[in-house]
Amino acid sequence: MSINTSVVTSTGNRVVKEFKELHRSRNRRQKNRTIIEGPTVFSVFVDNGVTPVSVIAHQSDRTTIDICSRRQIPLTLASEHVVHAAGGTVTTPGPVALIDIPMAATLQRSNTLVLVDIADPGNVGTMIRTSAAFGWDVAYAGATADPWAPKTIRAATGAHVYTRLIPLPQGLGPIREAGLTILASIVDDGDTPARSTDPVALLIGSEAHGLPEWALGPDATPVSIEMPGGVESLNAAIAAGILVHQLS
Amino acid sequence: MSINTSVVTSTGNRVVKEFKELHRSRNRRQKNRTIIEGPTVFSVFVDNGVTPVSVIAHQSDRTTIDICSRRQIPLTLASEHVVHAAGGTVTTPGPVALIDIPMAATLQRSNTLVLVDIADPGNVGTMIRTSAAFGWDVAYAGATADPWAPKTIRAATGAHVYTRLIPLPQGLGPIREAGLTILASIVDDGDTPARSTDPVALLIGSEAHGLPEWALGPDATPVSIEMPGGVESLNAAIAAGILVHQLS
Repeated sequence: MSINTSVVTSTGNRVVKEFKELHRSRNRRQKNRTIIEGPTVFSVFVDNGVTPVSVIAHQSDRTTIDICSRRQIPLTLASEHVVHAAGGTVTTPGPVALIDIPMAATLQRSNTLVLVDIADPGNVGTMIRTSAAFGWDVAYAGATADPWAPKTIRAATGAHVYTRLIPLPQGLGPIREAGLTILASIVDDGDTPARSTDPVALLIGSEAHGLPEWALGPDATPVSIEMPGGVESLNAAIAAGILVHQLS
Repeated sequence: MSINTSVVTSTGNRVVKEFKELHRSRNRRQKNRTIIEGPTVFSVFVDNGVTPVSVIAHQSDRTTIDICSRRQIPLTLASEHVVHAAGGTVTTPGPVALIDIPMAATLQRSNTLVLVDIADPGNVGTMIRTSAAFGWDVAYAGATADPWAPKTIRAATGAHVYTRLIPLPQGLGPIREAGLTILASIVDDGDTPARSTDPVALLIGSEAHGLPEWALGPDATPVSIEMPGGVESLNAAIAAGILVHQLS
């Protein structure tokens, strides 16, 4: 397949523009594509069977050139500032790859971390990484940051390939119908969660406001982490990590 | 004390320059001062007995004006872009306060999270917040990011006031001498840590490279988190959170 040996030095290049468009959430949704960045994430995706639509790499990036030529992935070589412009979130020099966003998964009868209104892409990425490490699925609802944003994928170090990502409407209905025990994480006065043989849906709310009303319905059991220190609350991703570990 | 009712509109103002100097790590060390930002962190510090040397706030920020006037803290009122320039990390409008960095603490016979070469200020801040929540002390060694950097303080949501921060030289000697059981967090094949009645020092290594050689000496017990999923490792702050919780 095509490895163009000429080196792109202009950010106005057609291919580079295709990548840059995907920095915007709206364009990602419309085209159902996103970009992934950096050698670690790139190799996690490629090694797990994802074939990028197209790759931009620095002219001296032998590893990426080898991978693309071996796997017949279209590669554009570029100067450093062009690779940066194509990526946009990483300070190390590429590679940057354009990928199709895989089809959304649906709820199953297995442990699922449900992100509700998690605003920070770094937190969303970290929670995807944690869920994948413990074999949990990840669902997301409300104003949660785009799990396929380049920043989120970077924070997850590409763990997207090891878990199932499930978009959810607001409301506990679909979770209940999937046969999951619903646990709602609150800061104080919830139960201490115990490992269970039944699969659970663990709901984690926004960094600033916690869970919204609809997530605290009568069929949700509130759970909390006991904290002896003076601090009011934990970072949302830390709370999720502790609870997922405790329930696994 | 002095609340100057004139509004500073230039970032070249003498007081603003004093704040801006503290964006640099070298100046913070030299002057032993730092800045804290945003209403949440500001009130955590002030409510816990820290009296800022000086505060810059937006001319319409009634809450901060009230607090400063009640507690006789020198306040400079400023326009929005000047408050931003004084702070530098926050997108919400102030307040920004200049504080003296408190005297460094020393190791005690109590649970201590030891950060070794943790490069990311956000991770350092999150780990300070977690430690404070579980009543642990925090020690830091090697190339760990400045725990008193404004970014770190923001990520900790000011939890600095609820814990003891201890600078450490490289080497396990001081930790052993403090009578702490040394646990070294590694990705694979370590023991599953069990709650202990003896106080522990839990060492967490850098995001990219884990713990350096000196931290893995013969008197350190390696500990790991069992992870059934495909992911290679957890985010360092998540691993610290799970282990601190498990040991508490």
